[in-house]
Amino acid sequence: MLEDMNEKCAVVGIYGHQEASKLAYFSLHSLQHRGQEAAGISSSDGKKLHTIKNRGLVMRVFNERKLETLSGSSAVGHTRYSTAGDDSILDAQPVFARYDLGEMAIVHNGNLTNAEEVRNKLIEKGAIFQTFMDTENLIHLIAKSEKEKLIDRIIDAVHRIEGAFSLVFLSRSKMFAMRDRHGFRPLSLGKLPNGGYIVASETCAFDLVGAEYIRDVRPGELLVFSEGKEPESIQVFEPTPKHCIFEYVYFARPDSMVFGQSVYQTRKNMGKELAKVQPVEADVVIPVPDGGVPAAIGYAQESGIPYEMGIMRNHYIGRTFIEPTQEMRDLKVKMKLSPMPNVIAGKRVIVIDDSIVRGTTSKRIVRMLKEAGAKEVHMRVSSPPTTDPCFYGVDTPDKDKLIAANMTLEEIRVYIEADSLAYLDESSLLRSVNATEDNYCTACFTGKYIV
Amino acid sequence: MLEDMNEKCAVVGIYGHQEASKLAYFSLHSLQHRGQEAAGISSSDGKKLHTIKNRGLVMRVFNERKLETLSGSSAVGHTRYSTAGDDSILDAQPVFARYDLGEMAIVHNGNLTNAEEVRNKLIEKGAIFQTFMDTENLIHLIAKSEKEKLIDRIIDAVHRIEGAFSLVFLSRSKMFAMRDRHGFRPLSLGKLPNGGYIVASETCAFDLVGAEYIRDVRPGELLVFSEGKEPESIQVFEPTPKHCIFEYVYFARPDSMVFGQSVYQTRKNMGKELAKVQPVEADVVIPVPDGGVPAAIGYAQESGIPYEMGIMRNHYIGRTFIEPTQEMRDLKVKMKLSPMPNVIAGKRVIVIDDSIVRGTTSKRIVRMLKEAGAKEVHMRVSSPPTTDPCFYGVDTPDKDKLIAANMTLEEIRVYIEADSLAYLDESSLLRSVNATEDNYCTACFTGKYIV
Amino acid sequence: MLEDMNEKCAVVGIYGHQEASKLAYFSLHSLQHRGQEAAGISSSDGKKLHTIKNRGLVMRVFNERKLETLSGSSAVGHTRYSTAGDDSILDAQPVFARYDLGEMAIVHNGNLTNAEEVRNKLIEKGAIFQTFMDTENLIHLIAKSEKEKLIDRIIDAVHRIEGAFSLVFLSRSKMFAMRDRHGFRPLSLGKLPNGGYIVASETCAFDLVGAEYIRDVRPGELLVFSEGKEPESIQVFEPTPKHCIFEYVYFARPDSMVFGQSVYQTRKNMGKELAKVQPVEADVVIPVPDGGVPAAIGYAQESGIPYEMGIMRNHYIGRTFIEPTQEMRDLKVKMKLSPMPNVIAGKRVIVIDDSIVRGTTSKRIVRMLKEAGAKEVHMRVSSPPTTDPCFYGVDTPDKDKLIAANMTLEEIRVYIEADSLAYLDESSLLRSVNATEDNYCTACFTGKYIV
Amino acid sequence: MLEDMNEKCAVVGIYGHQEASKLAYFSLHSLQHRGQEAAGISSSDGKKLHTIKNRGLVMRVFNERKLETLSGSSAVGHTRYSTAGDDSILDAQPVFARYDLGEMAIVHNGNLTNAEEVRNKLIEKGAIFQTFMDTENLIHLIAKSEKEKLIDRIIDAVHRIEGAFSLVFLSRSKMFAMRDRHGFRPLSLGKLPNGGYIVASETCAFDLVGAEYIRDVRPGELLVFSEGKEPESIQVFEPTPKHCIFEYVYFARPDSMVFGQSVYQTRKNMGKELAKVQPVEADVVIPVPDGGVPAAIGYAQESGIPYEMGIMRNHYIGRTFIEPTQEMRDLKVKMKLSPMPNVIAGKRVIVIDDSIVRGTTSKRIVRMLKEAGAKEVHMRVSSPPTTDPCFYGVDTPDKDKLIAANMTLEEIRVYIEADSLAYLDESSLLRSVNATEDNYCTACFTGKYIV
Repeated sequence: MLEDMNEKCAVVGIYGHQEASKLAYFSLHSLQHRGQEAAGISSSDGKKLHTIKNRGLVMRVFNERKLETLSGSSAVGHTRYSTAGDDSILDAQPVFARYDLGEMAIVHNGNLTNAEEVRNKLIEKGAIFQTFMDTENLIHLIAKSEKEKLIDRIIDAVHRIEGAFSLVFLSRSKMFAMRDRHGFRPLSLGKLPNGGYIVASETCAFDLVGAEYIRDVRPGELLVFSEGKEPESIQVFEPTPKHCIFEYVYFARPDSMVFGQSVYQTRKNMGKELAKVQPVEADVVIPVPDGGVPAAIGYAQESGIPYEMGIMRNHYIGRTFIEPTQEMRDLKVKMKLSPMPNVIAGKRVIVIDDSIVRGTTSKRIVRMLKEAGAKEVHMRVSSPPTTDPCFYGVDTPDKDKLIAANMTLEEIRVYIEADSLAYLDESSLLRSVNATEDNYCTACFTGKYIV
Repeated sequence: MLEDMNEKCAVVGIYGHQEASKLAYFSLHSLQHRGQEAAGISSSDGKKLHTIKNRGLVMRVFNERKLETLSGSSAVGHTRYSTAGDDSILDAQPVFARYDLGEMAIVHNGNLTNAEEVRNKLIEKGAIFQTFMDTENLIHLIAKSEKEKLIDRIIDAVHRIEGAFSLVFLSRSKMFAMRDRHGFRPLSLGKLPNGGYIVASETCAFDLVGAEYIRDVRPGELLVFSEGKEPESIQVFEPTPKHCIFEYVYFARPDSMVFGQSVYQTRKNMGKELAKVQPVEADVVIPVPDGGVPAAIGYAQESGIPYEMGIMRNHYIGRTFIEPTQEMRDLKVKMKLSPMPNVIAGKRVIVIDDSIVRGTTSKRIVRMLKEAGAKEVHMRVSSPPTTDPCFYGVDTPDKDKLIAANMTLEEIRVYIEADSLAYLDESSLLRSVNATEDNYCTACFTGKYIV
Repeated sequence: MLEDMNEKCAVVGIYGHQEASKLAYFSLHSLQHRGQEAAGISSSDGKKLHTIKNRGLVMRVFNERKLETLSGSSAVGHTRYSTAGDDSILDAQPVFARYDLGEMAIVHNGNLTNAEEVRNKLIEKGAIFQTFMDTENLIHLIAKSEKEKLIDRIIDAVHRIEGAFSLVFLSRSKMFAMRDRHGFRPLSLGKLPNGGYIVASETCAFDLVGAEYIRDVRPGELLVFSEGKEPESIQVFEPTPKHCIFEYVYFARPDSMVFGQSVYQTRKNMGKELAKVQPVEADVVIPVPDGGVPAAIGYAQESGIPYEMGIMRNHYIGRTFIEPTQEMRDLKVKMKLSPMPNVIAGKRVIVIDDSIVRGTTSKRIVRMLKEAGAKEVHMRVSSPPTTDPCFYGVDTPDKDKLIAANMTLEEIRVYIEADSLAYLDESSLLRSVNATEDNYCTACFTGKYIV
Repeated sequence: MLEDMNEKCAVVGIYGHQEASKLAYFSLHSLQHRGQEAAGISSSDGKKLHTIKNRGLVMRVFNERKLETLSGSSAVGHTRYSTAGDDSILDAQPVFARYDLGEMAIVHNGNLTNAEEVRNKLIEKGAIFQTFMDTENLIHLIAKSEKEKLIDRIIDAVHRIEGAFSLVFLSRSKMFAMRDRHGFRPLSLGKLPNGGYIVASETCAFDLVGAEYIRDVRPGELLVFSEGKEPESIQVFEPTPKHCIFEYVYFARPDSMVFGQSVYQTRKNMGKELAKVQPVEADVVIPVPDGGVPAAIGYAQESGIPYEMGIMRNHYIGRTFIEPTQEMRDLKVKMKLSPMPNVIAGKRVIVIDDSIVRGTTSKRIVRMLKEAGAKEVHMRVSSPPTTDPCFYGVDTPDKDKLIAANMTLEEIRVYIEADSLAYLDESSLLRSVNATEDNYCTACFTGKYIV
């Protein structure tokens, strides 16, 4: 699919480890796939919060000396995918604030659907906004809450916001982790090897730092981390799960558990289902790497058609600003993906991708495979047609750019020049992720948004 | 004197020029001596404000492409000297805010003496502070003011703050320039060659962009710039001038006019007065470059003792982190200043510096001159002993670091190993700057702070 | 295997295209996996050669402006893996020289076994050497040759050198491509879409620029490119092929053809052979990515045991200089590779790697899999034990660092903590690459060096 | 004069100090004004030479870690002004070579007039040239010399070259310093505080490292530095001094001694002579900073007309690529120089510059002064009209760009829009530098080149 849709962020929180900011750093590195534009960490040394954030990859933003200034035994961190391309104001997180109870830092993965309304109300009452991030609403709501204790203010604040949020708050002495009632975005809890806790968007962050997965933070739950205590759980909202099914389709790392299941396994299941409901005679099954790999393995296992590596991904990619020569077509895709003629030539090829968003990349891939000699190209997509934008924390193109919102299946097939095209239907997708009830958000495929 | 005391900032505003941000950029370059740590510009295109700010010199922060994104016919800019050395939160200006009247950006040169008190009150009422800059108070006061129009809110806000401020505010359609009632810090008004206006901390910014000096913004005056009109003047406070005399002594560029007078001329006058009141028999008069040059020229002219270049300044300076060898003494000073043995050897030398703050640099300079063969070294300082810290926008060491606050004249002379040492007394200094009334702040020499 | 052995270089030559240096640039990008330390391009505009080379990745060394200065219709390029870690002298290629016939630039992939002897002779006769590269010998030999024409001098020069060399020479008007008689290192010839030719270390360079593969440059063959003519072939040496079998095992990109065969296909064959000769009962077959993927696919196909993605590779890797905390074991490997517990836990796992060099990485991988819950770990290596260093252009550790040169199979198994360990034997390897005769160099497995 | 003519290089050598490369580093920093394009140092640890060189200022090329790799007790260093603007081949020094006697590194300030002829002869005999630097000739000549000992080879080699050269050679155990018979370019010898020696292009390098000036290396002299011995002197050529008078006029730092005299003092003398031979009635004497300062002081002292700072130099200069607005004239000069209206307005101004090369800068300066209100502008130049290019190590524009080679005095005056214009004549210039005999090269004023 290649970057047509993007997870907006990842969050992490560390509590009770004397090198908290270092653990946050390594965790953020594991979560780098969820946001490459900016990174930041705030730590608390018990008296004062320290914050460093900047544009760039985690490894570029921090160094040993900077991590040392982020002293203390608790820390929250964030990586960000910037939608705006606007380098004017530094919209990086954590969002830091001094307020009447002292200092706080917040990291947020998600999107508030009533952000503008809340902001307007706050602004009417004299608040000022210095960034373009939804998260700024939260620090205002907390600062303005009339409750006395921070915990009550957080509860007060989250009652005033709607939409998707996996949040971690840091105060001088405590840490709080909270998910919206629908649990749109993931957030898991782990235990550090020598005591202390970690919360993170994906469990792949646990592995690098040696943490053990305990359970997910529950939808609507607020976890409170205090010194010398077990985390205290407060169920702020009745949970009505609507997990983002696209985490399984594309965003999360395959070695992560999200929403309690292995991402790799659900993707493989999607491939298997796809083989059952959308079979086609062919010689080889190949993935569009890296996203399509697990589903292609599943498809191959189910169909008995051999799995092959038919497209190679080049990872020495940066941005090149060199104009191609006039003979060089589809350069942008070809810099990343190259076909393996030997695998493809003369063959009937099933190519598995995780999704089709704009369709332009798919068109280039099919063309590339045909030029490499494929006799037939059958595009199989391990998710339903993407027809509607996301309002819960994913950066999607406008509806008029979503090919499936504007063309019929056959029109798309013709456009991408494939011999056949088929998607995984919604119910097969739900089956792949063991969704016995309707506890997943599938709005990007169905337009059925939670009100 | 070499960087023991530092001006904290410079501001600039451009109104009514289609390349406003470019003019702000060149103006900031001229004001670079007032702050080298960070730079920023906000522009308005009539609908929206655009802001770019970052750490580094003006030339590094901006490039042609970035300036193009700062579109519109008005702009405000800022350079900053960072006191904290803290690279955690980006305390750069302009400070940008969205609030109930839309968007604004503020640049500020000065220091608010009641900043903490104001901030605490605002925080009590639920405000949050995201930076460590005094300037953040102002956007809160404006946002929270109950007046309807921005202009009235600005007036409201500046009534609640105390201390030193030369401010420029940018809204979508207007620009405002304001100085505190004492006019501590400079702010001048100029006219652009093809229409439009500029306000800037020093007139040296006018020359590069071809602007013509009109007059200073008056203490307590608010200037309002609106499309198609002459700037409107509102005298918000009764002016009670207390101009910072240290602008003449050290901060301002010699080619600037500040407070209505040529900086170079006042410095030359200081040198002449110094020759009158602190004469000494000698063979040559030499400045500590670059600060001491004008006063040394004045001293030489008045005394008839030849002016010479006895210390050379090396401008290829960056920060070196190379440790010197054990034989290399006083490396830090010697990387910048080197003596001219031929001018000095066997001579009785009067060396003119603009001020003595900590005394360590003076000691090294005297030692350097003696090692170069000076028979006698007579240190003459073109300002009174610096005994008290500044609260009006200048970064001064703590009182216990100010040598003149802790030693007698003779003790200082012994410490710096000079054959004689004399300062310019306060009344001679005032005479040098034509201060017929007591309209200058001399608190750093006298401890007499304005209440 | 992860970087224990490294290809030293890649070369490319473009002839007869008006944007020759741009094509060289994109080709080098495709060959980046063969050397990441330095890159360079020389072009000829018919009158003069232009050269740019520097440390860093291809994308960093060049930009549009620099490529424009490399004007002309022919160009040679190089990427380099630096063995020395010595940043003193810039040992980057092309090597440029002015000599009696004008100017030339040479790029070289390989290693001269008589380099020191040749150099000493040249030095005895008064030559000077300004770099530490073998390639410098060649320009001396050409310059000193008593033949009149460049082509004869090249022939003269290559008769005096021994070892591995795939060379491209650029003069003002011609280009020459040459391989040693054994054809140790690959070099292929392609045709550009609108006329003109390309030679490159691997055919993956052809695909990006739209070139068509014609054939390999033959062992001992010299190809001469002149304006307006077909490339002229001169068989300088009787070909006695000894192709580097490690190109198939590890170095070349799987989408390349080298030595006339698909790299992917030969690797898959190795996996299939391995399944035949070293079977083991297990639940899943997983590769060590990315190197082990093709062989694991082959192993799975042959054995019928399901192929799974059991280890995930993280491509957001740079160098981190952050020290791990004391709980963090095996950080260096874990930053790159992470296990998929869901695939592994409770399973008997066959893990396929392309080779074992030092053994330390294998040990960490086995440990990682066991910690992720694997019931049994069976390491299968798709090449024979690496026992001997390479003298033909590959950077290998010293013999005392090669685990298979110092331990028995069982000792290695114990060391890496695997339940079983097996390698592909030499004859099976040769069968995998269709080596009916002994036309491959297997010295790194056998110690049988060509004299 | 502002960069219309440029010294090409500086050299330094350190012998007998355990931190030799560090001393070379600091010395090069002092010599930075002689070349800002590239810098390099080679050191010898007795067994091996180590070299680091790159583009950029001395402070950028080196850091503590790099200096540590340059181990050993002897070192040579170089800074370079690049004429070509060609970043293709890294033409930085030291030039390093392995040859039959081992390793050597050479640094060179000057220009060989028979370089092409020597190179062609060497090339005819089979030598190759890998750079575009004259210096490469020398290593060939040394390597090819039939003498046995290095010292004899150096003597042999310098007999074959003509032109200007101040050279320092480093071998594993010795260091050699040599000047051509005319002593065109300076080279001085100093003693380090704790033993050991330094040679450097200017004595300003001695001051920073605490070295004591002993004497100049004599024209035609070769100094040999060996362990545990005093430097040995060999007078290779009969000295026939032709020192570059432009070192006094512009190149050397005023705090240096070159050719045995204080640069500052000679410049002041030029100003005094100029006042005697080219008097004019005026109100103030001002320099074009920084070059014109010493001569302006001299002019003022001799004439009795007050010395003033009438033009201010801005040292926050980098390269800006921002296009000026249409109203902004003469931006390039104004970014560097700004007038002091207060000093100039209504005055008859004598402005002193060290030289006029192209005339464009002078024109802009006069215009700037007039716009600032000068009643009259009298340009006085402290050297004769520059009419001829230099072939001895200075980068001069072509003769058709030299205004004085193409216009009469009156035409130049009209062109630069000055009220009067006068130069210092040759005999007055010679008198200023105490040149009793004709031992200076004045070819750039007279066209009288040494054959």
